[in-house]
Amino acid sequence: MTYEKDGAEIYRQSFATIRAESSLDRFPGGLERVVVRMIHACGMVDLATDVAFSPGVYDAAYDALQAGAPIFCDAQMVASGITRKRLPKDNDVICTLPHVGPAGENTRSAMAVELWRDRLEGAVVAIGNAPTALFHLLDLVAAGGPRPAAVLGIPVGFIGAAESKEALISSDLEHLVVRGRRGGSAIVAAAVNALATVVEQ
Amino acid sequence: MTYEKDGAEIYRQSFATIRAESSLDRFPGGLERVVVRMIHACGMVDLATDVAFSPGVYDAAYDALQAGAPIFCDAQMVASGITRKRLPKDNDVICTLPHVGPAGENTRSAMAVELWRDRLEGAVVAIGNAPTALFHLLDLVAAGGPRPAAVLGIPVGFIGAAESKEALISSDLEHLVVRGRRGGSAIVAAAVNALATVVEQ
Repeated sequence: MTYEKDGAEIYRQSFATIRAESSLDRFPGGLERVVVRMIHACGMVDLATDVAFSPGVYDAAYDALQAGAPIFCDAQMVASGITRKRLPKDNDVICTLPHVGPAGENTRSAMAVELWRDRLEGAVVAIGNAPTALFHLLDLVAAGGPRPAAVLGIPVGFIGAAESKEALISSDLEHLVVRGRRGGSAIVAAAVNALATVVEQ
Repeated sequence: MTYEKDGAEIYRQSFATIRAESSLDRFPGGLERVVVRMIHACGMVDLATDVAFSPGVYDAAYDALQAGAPIFCDAQMVASGITRKRLPKDNDVICTLPHVGPAGENTRSAMAVELWRDRLEGAVVAIGNAPTALFHLLDLVAAGGPRPAAVLGIPVGFIGAAESKEALISSDLEHLVVRGRRGGSAIVAAAVNALATVVEQ
């Protein structure tokens, strides 16, 4: 079959298509590049419409990664999607979900967030699956717990996803969000990958 | 914050919402359950509109998994999203991408498919990332190579994704596809998880 076989050319054409078809004017500097990569991960140019962010989130996340901060992920798929060789300081990519037992008063995803406490201050958080992980993180911070440098809060689904993301927007944490039901591990991993280095490929 | 913390209840409500809001009548028996789970993975009920399939794909994939067939994945994120404890025969989940060198005449994703040959006959293929992997698989089969039992062909993106999926639909392979640009590792991993066991959670 005839198809484009040059990976660099596929990336170039993909990013050009995204920039031609989506509305990115409201995203400052580096964040435009992050949103392009999020769109690239899901194939939907209209995702840009649902992106919400705090003005300082790009610098906060970028600087934290450059300083070697760990990246906490709510799901193994998120951790798996982060390209290690893009990370500026061989940053730790941590998913604690395999270390929690059966669900109790909350979901396993929320219980896993409890295990982030020791290194959460100044860390980057990447949530791409469980609304309960994001809700629990917000409760933990509101109760005076450690504050991450930036929260990429992009859980997906029908029960609690939209609500947890609105709660994050209403918080005083630096945040990047896809409003509504859409989200997922590929989108949030793409955001981390774009924040990790300014190289597009 | 007040939110649903019971994982089983979150699943139940999620699947009920999906069934209330999406058009699933054209999906026979087991396939309806697969599509529900694909929608669950991406938060979009209209995904159902773009799903295409061969009539025998459910039985072909289900029977292959029950017989212990391996699952070949084009990306680590796909492999990472497959819930091992759902698999009926401790089936091997294989991603060969880490084993190929730098891209040459084709992408690394396509080169990785070459390494599937030995066990590809009768296997289940789950493609959630690279159109070039799907194109190369179709070329390999068309050239008389081993034939997988079923191909879940759900690559994502702007260059080649839609075209590779139309090529799969036109082939004589058992297939499940999301037409167009949408797709991704979470959706195809969800399809595998649904095919692996009839239990919904």
